[in-house]
Amino acid sequence: MNLTTVSPEEARKQIRDGHWKQPTAGIANGFIQANLAVLPKELAFDFLLFCQRNQKPCPIIDVTEVGSVIPKLAAPNGNIMTDIPKYRIYKHGELVDEVQDATGYWRTDMVGFLIGCSFTFEEALLNNHIPIRHIEENCNVPMYETNIECVKSGMFEGPMVVSMRPMKEADAIRAIQVTSRFPSVHGAPVHLGNPEKIGIKDINKPEFGDAVTIKDGEVPVFWACGVTPQAVAMRAKPEIMITHAPGHMFITDVLNEQYAIM
Amino acid sequence: MNLTTVSPEEARKQIRDGHWKQPTAGIANGFIQANLAVLPKELAFDFLLFCQRNQKPCPIIDVTEVGSVIPKLAAPNGNIMTDIPKYRIYKHGELVDEVQDATGYWRTDMVGFLIGCSFTFEEALLNNHIPIRHIEENCNVPMYETNIECVKSGMFEGPMVVSMRPMKEADAIRAIQVTSRFPSVHGAPVHLGNPEKIGIKDINKPEFGDAVTIKDGEVPVFWACGVTPQAVAMRAKPEIMITHAPGHMFITDVLNEQYAIM
Repeated sequence: MNLTTVSPEEARKQIRDGHWKQPTAGIANGFIQANLAVLPKELAFDFLLFCQRNQKPCPIIDVTEVGSVIPKLAAPNGNIMTDIPKYRIYKHGELVDEVQDATGYWRTDMVGFLIGCSFTFEEALLNNHIPIRHIEENCNVPMYETNIECVKSGMFEGPMVVSMRPMKEADAIRAIQVTSRFPSVHGAPVHLGNPEKIGIKDINKPEFGDAVTIKDGEVPVFWACGVTPQAVAMRAKPEIMITHAPGHMFITDVLNEQYAIM
Repeated sequence: MNLTTVSPEEARKQIRDGHWKQPTAGIANGFIQANLAVLPKELAFDFLLFCQRNQKPCPIIDVTEVGSVIPKLAAPNGNIMTDIPKYRIYKHGELVDEVQDATGYWRTDMVGFLIGCSFTFEEALLNNHIPIRHIEENCNVPMYETNIECVKSGMFEGPMVVSMRPMKEADAIRAIQVTSRFPSVHGAPVHLGNPEKIGIKDINKPEFGDAVTIKDGEVPVFWACGVTPQAVAMRAKPEIMITHAPGHMFITDVLNEQYAIM
């Protein structure tokens, strides 16, 4: 099945009906895909404020009404409990289940957060003919915990997670320009060059995702990563939390380009 | 007394000590000034989400911890209950008091929201030699209620308020570029040209502020205005709400230029 050019609505339907169970990269091309974090209402203010205080790693795309599975702004026909190919259920910070339909875990006191992901700016990089190594090598983007502390909010605190893309200096300069157009989906990089400066000891051993080749004459460029809010929420060990499984995103009706500020 | 070039900390001290009781335009030049809205904690999530959903009119600069008068990120030595020259106290949507020190109304269940204001991008316009009529005419910027509905959150809903600056077409184009650099303080305009298109019946009768001259060959350019969240909050008639008085802003330690995304 090829869902590259279908509408977001059709892609979500195929996923909901169980016809698509793989990662969502490349599906419904051109539309924003989002990370999911679902938390009980009593934690929602502190988590929303955490995202507001740490906008680079935690760019909010939509927040559902308390008890509603519908992201009214990002996908009015969508359902955050059925339209993702794979969910993870955490209780007190421990993974307890992985499901294709999370409806059974939904509660009326829950709030769903859709958080931007780097697929958006990667499309913009590719449109500028900037090569992306993990796509070339057909693996996950390498992600690292850093020594950059997020700004705390209530029980939510922890280090920023970054993703890394190696490229030539001239491409890095262009990539900074290109991603600056998308401040609400991670925006400009947070670091480039020496990984130790942000507390990364071994660039070949990412905490999440896969290591990629860094060629001679390339510099690593680091962007704030949407894994951050999940990592921070898990560290806070909430009673229950529902997330997407890595790479299995929620597909919205919003065009990537609509998030460019100019 | 001339506070144009003093530090934000010194400006806040002069205000706190009662030596400056006027509007704050032009004080501590170059630093972000903010609107204030203080609400009880029970309304804080819905209000924060309202601001998140309506970022153009409601750009959050900082949110205090519950019960804390200190905006730790924007002004760690500041106090939102003493450092503004004039406060307004609203109960159930009615103005009940105007004070120079709001400490007497503070409660431990309160949360303070600092929201960006147009002073930030006006500095950027002036730096580009784009004339600003209400500054030339030494009056308040004209503000209008529009037929653009904000996205609702809980009890918070209502129309977007916009501010208007008339200018030549070439200046309007440059102004769009210049203000696009500041997406977190209102960003690009929401409309230009025919006021009726956004529900403004008489451009010479603004709902807030003062009318200004529109010269031959000028187009009115409209930006989302930070008065919106206050207007919306008042419409919701919360039990208690504390705000700054118009033009009497909270001066932060953050440079305007730090809010430019490139």
